[in-house]
Amino acid sequence: MANLRPEQYAGSRAVIVDLPSYISGYVDGEGCFSVSIAPRRALAAGWEVRPSVSVSQNADRSEVLLEIQRYFGCGTLRPDRSDQTLKWEARSLQTLWERIVPHFRTYPLLSGKQRDFEQFAVICELMIRGDHRDPFGLKEIVRIAGQMNPSGKRRYLPDMILKDLEMKA
Amino acid sequence: MANLRPEQYAGSRAVIVDLPSYISGYVDGEGCFSVSIAPRRALAAGWEVRPSVSVSQNADRSEVLLEIQRYFGCGTLRPDRSDQTLKWEARSLQTLWERIVPHFRTYPLLSGKQRDFEQFAVICELMIRGDHRDPFGLKEIVRIAGQMNPSGKRRYLPDMILKDLEMKA
Repeated sequence: MANLRPEQYAGSRAVIVDLPSYISGYVDGEGCFSVSIAPRRALAAGWEVRPSVSVSQNADRSEVLLEIQRYFGCGTLRPDRSDQTLKWEARSLQTLWERIVPHFRTYPLLSGKQRDFEQFAVICELMIRGDHRDPFGLKEIVRIAGQMNPSGKRRYLPDMILKDLEMKA
Repeated sequence: MANLRPEQYAGSRAVIVDLPSYISGYVDGEGCFSVSIAPRRALAAGWEVRPSVSVSQNADRSEVLLEIQRYFGCGTLRPDRSDQTLKWEARSLQTLWERIVPHFRTYPLLSGKQRDFEQFAVICELMIRGDHRDPFGLKEIVRIAGQMNPSGKRRYLPDMILKDLEMKA
């Protein structure tokens, strides 16, 4: 049970907030697990897989993002180009696998976003094993990524990437 | 420590999510404490004060709203007219005072939204005492409400309401 600093958040009241649970609740509302797949000639498979987790927030209420950064001990804070928000984002595969995945397995999301997380976690595990470096593993990753965030925008459609990989195989 | 139903949310994993903390985190991201003040001739003071708390969510991910409704044991779920979202909203002064205010005093928000909550809680307390029924108490409520959600839209500006109350006093 991690406690928030009482003097900072609640005056003299007894604070019993469980920070890990709070963060899962916050990420359920405002966070996004994403796996982007983009062409990259330098890689043998021709495509780069980039998993990331991010949380956005109005820039004038950045306290929670700082708390999330401190809690996970990773990720960067930067202004989002598209709007007036600030974004915390973690991209390093190693820290995603060691800090983000275990947290959301222990403190799962209540909403359907947990399904996105589970697919995200499977992709991180496949990448930790190096499966994204060969076309067969990469195809599996593309298929799983294609099931995530169905309402999100995609620059490269999974079917298009799979077709490209078929041609290379 | 309230536990989520493990079979529903996390397969066979041990779940240690603290639901009250999770809900505070979720409300910090997606919730809104609001006090609307609108003209109403039937009331002696001429203005009606309506505090409410609400949380919106894409309609295809309504699980969290149902959990929030179940947890607080109050409020209604309905589609938001303005967009494709579902909204949980609690409006009854008695339940706001007995269930919502104590929760967020025990499990406070991490962000600056906690300030909105504190002003909301003060207004609920003044209303429980009946202060909104006389012009002096009502003016105090209008002043406090005017400090809440500074970025939100207001149909009736606090200064306008105060001027109207001055004329009646």
